[in-house]
Amino acid sequence: MARLGIPKGTRDFLPEQAAKRAYIFSKLRSVFEKHSFLPIETPSMENTETLMGKYGEEGDRLIFKILNSGDFLSKADKEALSKEDSNGMSQSISEKALRYDLTVPFARFVVQHQNELNFPFRRYQIQPVWRADRPQKGRYREFYQCDVDVIGSPSLLNELELCLMMKEGFSSLGLPDVTIHLNNRKILAGIAEKLNASEHLIDITVAIDKIDKIGKDKVLEELRKKEISEDIIAGIGPLLDNSGDNQSKLSSLKAFFGQHETGLTGIEEVEFILNNASKYGVDINFNITLARGLNYYTGAIFEVTHNDFPSSICGGGRYDDLTGIFGLKDISGVGISFGADRIYDLLEEKGLFPEDSLNKVELLFLNFGEKESLEAFRWVNELQKLGIQAIVYPDEAKLKKQFKYADDIGVTYVAFLGEQELEKGIVNLKDQKSGDQTEYSLSDLIKKMC
Amino acid sequence: MARLGIPKGTRDFLPEQAAKRAYIFSKLRSVFEKHSFLPIETPSMENTETLMGKYGEEGDRLIFKILNSGDFLSKADKEALSKEDSNGMSQSISEKALRYDLTVPFARFVVQHQNELNFPFRRYQIQPVWRADRPQKGRYREFYQCDVDVIGSPSLLNELELCLMMKEGFSSLGLPDVTIHLNNRKILAGIAEKLNASEHLIDITVAIDKIDKIGKDKVLEELRKKEISEDIIAGIGPLLDNSGDNQSKLSSLKAFFGQHETGLTGIEEVEFILNNASKYGVDINFNITLARGLNYYTGAIFEVTHNDFPSSICGGGRYDDLTGIFGLKDISGVGISFGADRIYDLLEEKGLFPEDSLNKVELLFLNFGEKESLEAFRWVNELQKLGIQAIVYPDEAKLKKQFKYADDIGVTYVAFLGEQELEKGIVNLKDQKSGDQTEYSLSDLIKKMC
Repeated sequence: MARLGIPKGTRDFLPEQAAKRAYIFSKLRSVFEKHSFLPIETPSMENTETLMGKYGEEGDRLIFKILNSGDFLSKADKEALSKEDSNGMSQSISEKALRYDLTVPFARFVVQHQNELNFPFRRYQIQPVWRADRPQKGRYREFYQCDVDVIGSPSLLNELELCLMMKEGFSSLGLPDVTIHLNNRKILAGIAEKLNASEHLIDITVAIDKIDKIGKDKVLEELRKKEISEDIIAGIGPLLDNSGDNQSKLSSLKAFFGQHETGLTGIEEVEFILNNASKYGVDINFNITLARGLNYYTGAIFEVTHNDFPSSICGGGRYDDLTGIFGLKDISGVGISFGADRIYDLLEEKGLFPEDSLNKVELLFLNFGEKESLEAFRWVNELQKLGIQAIVYPDEAKLKKQFKYADDIGVTYVAFLGEQELEKGIVNLKDQKSGDQTEYSLSDLIKKMC
Repeated sequence: MARLGIPKGTRDFLPEQAAKRAYIFSKLRSVFEKHSFLPIETPSMENTETLMGKYGEEGDRLIFKILNSGDFLSKADKEALSKEDSNGMSQSISEKALRYDLTVPFARFVVQHQNELNFPFRRYQIQPVWRADRPQKGRYREFYQCDVDVIGSPSLLNELELCLMMKEGFSSLGLPDVTIHLNNRKILAGIAEKLNASEHLIDITVAIDKIDKIGKDKVLEELRKKEISEDIIAGIGPLLDNSGDNQSKLSSLKAFFGQHETGLTGIEEVEFILNNASKYGVDINFNITLARGLNYYTGAIFEVTHNDFPSSICGGGRYDDLTGIFGLKDISGVGISFGADRIYDLLEEKGLFPEDSLNKVELLFLNFGEKESLEAFRWVNELQKLGIQAIVYPDEAKLKKQFKYADDIGVTYVAFLGEQELEKGIVNLKDQKSGDQTEYSLSDLIKKMC
C-alpha cells in the first residue's frame, strides 16, 4: 500500500481553504485590473541557467532542480561524480529548475518577448514559486506570489500608483490598517558614500535590514564583525534611530547629506511619493532601516507590515537594470509582490474572511428511489439554472445517513420529494434551522429561492 | 549574459493568451460551482512513491523527478551508480516528483483527509500537471487539467450530471456542437468474458482504443500480434463496426451478450445515461470502441470530441477502487477532466474567444510634465474608482512616442491635459477612431464614460 503524506513544506487545500485563497487572488486581481495591469504567465520550470546566480549563493541552494529524464547518468559529469561533488554533478544531470520567484522569469520574459510588448509594460502575475527552504510556521516550499510591475518607465508616478494599489489591495481584504514603509536605495548608497564606505554598502544594507529583528546594538555589532571602521559605525549609528515623524527624519538626513547628490536625490524621490500619496489618503512611513536583501533595487524600496503579523506581507522596489542580465540594457522597472500565503494566515488569524467564501449547498433533495430521484434531479436542474445551489443526494441511502450529510455540509433546506410529493407535483421543504416544513410547487419554490 | 529561452514543451503566456486562458477557467469554474462542486488544491510535488507505478511503465518514465536538495550524492544508491543505472539511481536521489495528473493526487488527498470530508464528496480542481512527453503540436510538458469528480457514491445520477456538465461547459464556451461519447468498461469486460478472453482484456481495450487512429483492420492485426486466437478475433470483429444509431448498436450487443450478466449490466448503465441525458437535450453517442487506456475505469467511460479537432478535449469515467491503493477500499468515484490547453487551441482555431477577453485601456492621458501629469493622475484615479480603464502615460516623452503607445495598446480615447486644460479644469478628449476632439469637465467625463 502506498504511504500517505505530502512533501514537507507543501500543503493540501481543503475546499474552505481553497475558496479563501481564491478570494484573496480575486480581490488582488480586481485591484490589478482596475489599474489596467495585464496578466502574464511563465512556465513553472525555467532552464536552470536562467535562475542560477541570480539570488546569491544561498538562493542557488534553495532552487529545486529537476532531474533530466531518461538515462541522465550517461551525460553526468564523471569527475564531479567521482569526487562525490553533488553541486558539480547536479549541473550535468539537471537542465531545468522550478522558478524561485516571479521577478527573474519576468525579466527573462520581457527580454525574450520585447518585440511583442508595449513599453511601459504593466503586468501582473499570480503564480506559485518553490524554494527548498527549511519549512517553518508561515514559510512554505510552495507558495504564491502576486506580482505587479511597470517596466520601461523611470517615472515616479509608477511608485505613486503602486503605493495606492497596496493600500487598495489591503483595504479590499479588510486590512486598511497596514503600514506601508518606504525607503530608497539612493539614500542607503548616499550614506555609505558620505561615510566613504561605499565598498561596504552590501554589508551595511544586509545588517540594517535586520534591525527590526535584532535591534540597533546588534546591527552595529554585526558591522564591527565585518571589520567596518569605528568611524563609519559612529556615523551610521544616529541614523538608525529612525524615530520621529517623516518630516523630522528627512530633515536630519538632509542635514547629514549636505550637498551630497545621490543622497539628496533619494530624499527628493521619497518626498515626492510621501507627499503625493498623502493626497489620496495613503500615509506612508519613511523607514531608513528598510533595506530588503535584494541587491537589484536601485530606487524606491517598499514593504508593507501589519501590527498583528511578524513578517512583511508585501514588498518591492525599483530596479534599473534587471533585464540587463538577459541582454536588454537600460530598462527601468518598479514592482511589488503580495505574499498571498502570509496574507492568508493574517486574515485567518483576524477572522477577516467573509462567511460566504465557500459556495454552500442551499437545498439538498433527499433520495427516495430511482423514480423520485430523477424527478428531484429535474427540479435541481431548474434551480441550478437560476444560480441556486441545489443537489440531489445521489444514493438511495438510509434517511438517517442522508440527514447527517445535510447537517455536515450545512444546507439551509432539506427537500422531500417522495412518492406522494411526486404524485402531487410538489416538494416538501424543511427549514433546517426552524424545523418548519412547507409544500411548494416548482414555480413557487423558484420564487422563494430567487 | 544568460541565454534566453524556456524548456521545450513549456510556454510563456502573453497578456492576451493569459486572459483567454483565464476565460476558459472562469467559464468551466462557473459550471462546476453551479453544480455545487467544491474547489480543492494539492501540491505540485508529491512524494515520488505516491506517483510511481500508478500510470504504467510508460507513465513512470514521463514523471518529472525533483533532485533532492543539498548533498544528494551522499545518499545515492552506490550500486545503481556503479552500474550507471539511471532508473535505479533516480530513486535514491529524488524523493519528490511533479504531479502527472490530478486523479492520483486526488485519491491520495481523499484518503489522507477522509475524516475532514463529507461523502459523497464533490470536488473540482484546476491545476497544472507535468509530463516529460515528447513535445509536439497540442502536446505540452506543462498543461492544465480541470477535473470534476464525485467520490463516495455509486449512483448513476452522478454520471448523468457529469454529462450535463460536459454539455454546459462546452456550450458556455461557444461549442454546443461537441460529441459526447459513452462506453462502459463492463461492456468491454463482458465481450472479453463472453469470448473466453478475459485474460486478454487489457490487450483488447488497448487495441480497440486505437481504432479511430489506425482503423479496424489494424486493430485486428494488433490483436493477432498479441497471440489472441482467431476465434476470439472473429468474435470481436463485427462488434467494432460501431455504425448505426445507439439503438441498433445496443440491440446487436444485447443479442451478442444473451444472458451474460456483466455485459447486460453495462448496457443497462449506458441506457440509463443515454435516455435520461436526452431528456435534457444532451445527445450522447454510444461508442463501443471508446476504451481509454486507463485500467482503473470500472463503469462508464466518457470522451468529448469536436469535428474540427483531432484529439479528445474532455474525458473521464467511473473508477470503483482508486483510493484502494492508498488503503481506503470500496469507495466508488466518477469524474471527468477538461483539457484546457486543447480547448484553448480549438477556440483559437475557430475564433471563438470573445473580443473583450483582455481588459483594454479606454483612456490614455498624455503626459505634459510633472504638474499636469499629477493632475491627470488625479482624474485617472477618479475614473478607475468607477471601473473605467484609464492610465496616465508615466513619462514626459515626446508626443509622437506617446501617441504611438496609444495606438499600440489600442486605446479608445487619448486625453490631453496640458497647461491650458489644467488652468481651465478640463480635459480635451480625442476619439481615436473618429478623430473628434471634445472638452470635458471631470464630472462630464465621468458621465460620458459610465
